[in-house]
Amino acid sequence: MESLKERRTIRHYQKKDLSSDLLNDLLKVSSRASTVGNMQIYSVIVTRDAERKAKLSPAHFNQPMIQTAPVVLTFCIDLRRFSKWCEHRKAEPGYDNFEWFVTGAVDALLFAQTFCVAAEEKGLGICYLGTTTYNPQMIIEALELPELVFPITTVTVGWPAEIPAQVDRLPLEAIVHDETYHDYTSEDIDRLYCYKEALPENIQFIRDNNKETLAQVFTDVRYTKKDGEMMSENLWNAMKKQGF
Amino acid sequence: MESLKERRTIRHYQKKDLSSDLLNDLLKVSSRASTVGNMQIYSVIVTRDAERKAKLSPAHFNQPMIQTAPVVLTFCIDLRRFSKWCEHRKAEPGYDNFEWFVTGAVDALLFAQTFCVAAEEKGLGICYLGTTTYNPQMIIEALELPELVFPITTVTVGWPAEIPAQVDRLPLEAIVHDETYHDYTSEDIDRLYCYKEALPENIQFIRDNNKETLAQVFTDVRYTKKDGEMMSENLWNAMKKQGF
Repeated sequence: MESLKERRTIRHYQKKDLSSDLLNDLLKVSSRASTVGNMQIYSVIVTRDAERKAKLSPAHFNQPMIQTAPVVLTFCIDLRRFSKWCEHRKAEPGYDNFEWFVTGAVDALLFAQTFCVAAEEKGLGICYLGTTTYNPQMIIEALELPELVFPITTVTVGWPAEIPAQVDRLPLEAIVHDETYHDYTSEDIDRLYCYKEALPENIQFIRDNNKETLAQVFTDVRYTKKDGEMMSENLWNAMKKQGF
Repeated sequence: MESLKERRTIRHYQKKDLSSDLLNDLLKVSSRASTVGNMQIYSVIVTRDAERKAKLSPAHFNQPMIQTAPVVLTFCIDLRRFSKWCEHRKAEPGYDNFEWFVTGAVDALLFAQTFCVAAEEKGLGICYLGTTTYNPQMIIEALELPELVFPITTVTVGWPAEIPAQVDRLPLEAIVHDETYHDYTSEDIDRLYCYKEALPENIQFIRDNNKETLAQVFTDVRYTKKDGEMMSENLWNAMKKQGF
């Protein structure tokens, strides 16, 4: 629990390698995570090679962690291995649909997060790259992912070269509902977001972006409706192309 | 790492309560998990009430853990709270699309899995219910989930009343790829699946189901193409109904 309580995302890494032995130990223990029907419908692609990182980098908007972390892990939904097994065993697989895309995402993400918790316990630092679902087609090409394999998240991992301040979280009452969903009144919203809105870095963030409210920085600058709709289309097209 | 290495899914629980204090501590520490743009686009619904469990149970094909675990947690994608905040702050949210459904799923699943790891470290036992995405509409109704909220996984949690044998996993080489995806030859499939196929319980499983291979038990009995396609449609329709 202690390493969880104290965790922060790490974006700066020492120029020190992460050994294959430790990486494999961590991946092996992570494969103990729950998996639907014990099917393990996921794969992970390990990127260490500088050239391969250069190919992967534009898909992640050239975030420097891709180049500076010793290891980049792309966690994928993988219905291919399981389907191949079926085909080699006189069984007809039917896992090329939306349900199995989502079920594969659950599987891959439990595996990914277990890896991150285990890695942090060993003193490593990790950073998730949400960009994975923005430009999936670029990642599919860079990592040569065949049909029924789909990148769902990316984690950079290495030895921390920083101890950043821990970022805020909403109070627990904001995210927990007893028995049924309790919708938020405007008073609830004020109470739950007031701490976040009062943080000096967020006030500065509003000013830097010439906005009136913090929420506007999200809707108008960071995550716009237009971008979301474009990315939805990219994601959907890439899914279809991968056979789902 | 030790509790991860030794973990097993727990389906039988002691008749002993899980205190709100411990549950909240675990949920709070889990909210330290990585989250896109620090948006925390998830919620969790806590079910303890017997009547509510009875409503929820059919959605999970009446798996007994719903009734016998002291606590059932339904982890949800939640773009509603964030969108409400935007609306109350003169910002126009654009998070009602497929990209944000998937991004919300990532967020909710990292939170859920962190909870499970932390709970197991405290000696609790957990079981994921993959049925969550099979009948989402029933869960939406049982838990009164409004628009932009969607159940992505369910976890039953309590004090273990069993220590089941640990189930097998594929060898690490089956799930890890160096630099690019290495497709599986039929020899690879034989090598990677031979241990699983030789397990006495799996040989028995084939016999019980009157099948020729273990793969056929999956494709013809457990997870058929027809069911997958029906569930894909249910899932898609429920997503649309929730406003995504």
